[in-house]
Amino acid sequence: MSVPESRPEAIELDGADPLADLRRRFALPEGVVYLDGNSLGPPLKSVAARVQQTVGAEWGSELVRAWNSCGWIELPARVAARIAPLIGAREDEVAVADSTSINVFKLLAAALSLRPDRPVILSEEENFPTDLYMAQGLAQLLGDRARLEVVPRNRLRSALDDRVAVLMLTHVDFRSGELHDMDEVTDAAHRAGALMLWDLAHSAGAVPVDLAACSADFAVGCGYKYLNGGPGAPAFAWVAQRHHDELRTPLAGWMGHRDPFAFSTGYEAAPGSVQLQAGTPPILSLVALDEALEIFSSVDVHALRRKSVALTELFIALVEDRLSGHGLRLASPRDPERRGSQVALAHPEGFAIMQALIDRGVIGDFRAPDLLRFGFAPAYTRFVDVWDAIAALGDIMTDRTWNRPEFRVRSRVT
Amino acid sequence: MSVPESRPEAIELDGADPLADLRRRFALPEGVVYLDGNSLGPPLKSVAARVQQTVGAEWGSELVRAWNSCGWIELPARVAARIAPLIGAREDEVAVADSTSINVFKLLAAALSLRPDRPVILSEEENFPTDLYMAQGLAQLLGDRARLEVVPRNRLRSALDDRVAVLMLTHVDFRSGELHDMDEVTDAAHRAGALMLWDLAHSAGAVPVDLAACSADFAVGCGYKYLNGGPGAPAFAWVAQRHHDELRTPLAGWMGHRDPFAFSTGYEAAPGSVQLQAGTPPILSLVALDEALEIFSSVDVHALRRKSVALTELFIALVEDRLSGHGLRLASPRDPERRGSQVALAHPEGFAIMQALIDRGVIGDFRAPDLLRFGFAPAYTRFVDVWDAIAALGDIMTDRTWNRPEFRVRSRVT
Repeated sequence: MSVPESRPEAIELDGADPLADLRRRFALPEGVVYLDGNSLGPPLKSVAARVQQTVGAEWGSELVRAWNSCGWIELPARVAARIAPLIGAREDEVAVADSTSINVFKLLAAALSLRPDRPVILSEEENFPTDLYMAQGLAQLLGDRARLEVVPRNRLRSALDDRVAVLMLTHVDFRSGELHDMDEVTDAAHRAGALMLWDLAHSAGAVPVDLAACSADFAVGCGYKYLNGGPGAPAFAWVAQRHHDELRTPLAGWMGHRDPFAFSTGYEAAPGSVQLQAGTPPILSLVALDEALEIFSSVDVHALRRKSVALTELFIALVEDRLSGHGLRLASPRDPERRGSQVALAHPEGFAIMQALIDRGVIGDFRAPDLLRFGFAPAYTRFVDVWDAIAALGDIMTDRTWNRPEFRVRSRVT
Repeated sequence: MSVPESRPEAIELDGADPLADLRRRFALPEGVVYLDGNSLGPPLKSVAARVQQTVGAEWGSELVRAWNSCGWIELPARVAARIAPLIGAREDEVAVADSTSINVFKLLAAALSLRPDRPVILSEEENFPTDLYMAQGLAQLLGDRARLEVVPRNRLRSALDDRVAVLMLTHVDFRSGELHDMDEVTDAAHRAGALMLWDLAHSAGAVPVDLAACSADFAVGCGYKYLNGGPGAPAFAWVAQRHHDELRTPLAGWMGHRDPFAFSTGYEAAPGSVQLQAGTPPILSLVALDEALEIFSSVDVHALRRKSVALTELFIALVEDRLSGHGLRLASPRDPERRGSQVALAHPEGFAIMQALIDRGVIGDFRAPDLLRFGFAPAYTRFVDVWDAIAALGDIMTDRTWNRPEFRVRSRVT
């Protein structure tokens, strides 16, 4: 792909994009270049009607009967079956339940019980904070039996020793977009006798994942980023089939019971990943995720990856060609093989620059201390969006628009 | 209140009901007598539009900005503030997060850490199973440091000794509707040096609760029964303010961090019950709950209780007057002071009788081995509904309709 030299040339790239039609299925506001789908994916157009049907024709008409008559009780398994092919999993290995945070807790506890003589949960400083927090919460609960060790990425290999029960890493770094090599890292963990837990929050739906091929043990992931399931959509959890017999979740809720509606006093785990269901699932949020996943039934995740790489390559090439001299530094790997579906640029005025971009309708986000973060969800991002984002960023840097006082006020969430 | 002798007399009772107008705010299907709001409350009519707004005008238009611009980030606290007055709580003592099951786990772990020398979680056989399961999951995780003891209700007092860290009970029994005396039981737990955790799933919104007055320590409750928040709506958790300084949840997610968007590596708990937030909340399900709670802003929970008692009294009186000789046995307390907002009738053919009732449009549910369960949510149940339910039940018993084969097939959920 040659780098376009004009906006019409960028539009030509969209004309040649075999995935271009997917965008029409998303509800995206006019005049917005949305580059934050790695934080919250947009709704599919069909989601509004689906949720409405669930509120009106199902909940409002069938009332409690809808658990059976409208299939709500089967919905977690159905959504799990839609996610499985995106991550190289068998359907019965995936559970859709709770949040990524809660699922991390379940699987770390399961990992520790499989390695009772090893107290260490190993992770890296760059990992997404809630994964580290959940490990800290578990370690505090377990006292001497568990502790979290967090090291810089370049010290992970040397920290992998016979005290480590489980290595927990996020496949795509939430700041830099840097990819771990899942095969290589999983293999290193296994050679040290440790189990491997992958957080796929920033990969599932944009970066192909093959959990079976890399022989990982556990995984979690997020429903509301590249899966577009809506704000706070239920998350997923994955346990390799070979661990199912020994699997025990400490969050032993009734939906993970072998026979929830027997209302028996003693807990008996359901087989496989079903036991990772805990309480009653939030159906309105779950149907939105179910509907959103429809998009993946018509597209191959490798085709999505090809487009994602083309988008991030174009963005970086345009930064290099057109935005030099403004002090923007690429904070993501230059090699697309080592990069997820997002690009980070560092600049000391990153916060204000991002506010100015958002004011221009280009929505990315900022991560302290200095990162402008841009996500390129391949299902709906156009090549012309990349062009327009670069054009807006160029104007802002040239005109120093970011120096306006209204862009320097820090809000609580970005 | 005299017992009506005809359907028009029952309608007269509705005419005199000061809460009668509330029903018009609910979306209830024609021809249905809904007596299962203790399992899943119906939607308010305004919920459909509210959820639609969240999908379209918020998620679809504001995208990730909606966390700030539409107040999503404040929504858990806002919903908590709506629930607080229903349970005699301060706003900052209540968290709205996750499921009842997950919240039980958080608070049992917190209770054990406040009583480190006491390993026993005490509960009763009649408790709702998921509460017992979560305690079993926690006990298995903690090994010698915790165990669940489950005794029949009449042995609770003698089991309360210096090994008990926390007594966990459900205020209103999910089968019989029998009420615990919260003051008396909490006091007994405290005299034994134990903490008290109440599950308010079957009371909040229908039976007045005063957690402050009874000096309880912890509580959880459900968003989708009498609070009408929708299937799998987020649940609530309550921690008495006096325990806030020492509170530590093992489910230490980023939304319970003091400053989630600092993305720091170390967990620092937010003050008060906010730390009971774990992962990202499911916004679509949460807005439905927020909208549903609007009903309580215009009505006093004691007025709801008066109507609830009148409804259950009428139901029982009509069973006694009109349904004797059919082998139906009252399985709920006859004294309304000892009864929640539901009534259970026992019959060996209970399952088939309930299927026949549902076929007639009278929706209650069945709980093994032999209970027909009827909930009387005071916000939308009419006196004429009680009359119609009794008339249908009378026909079914007289005609032995329940003996038809189609009513004897067991489905997975009821």
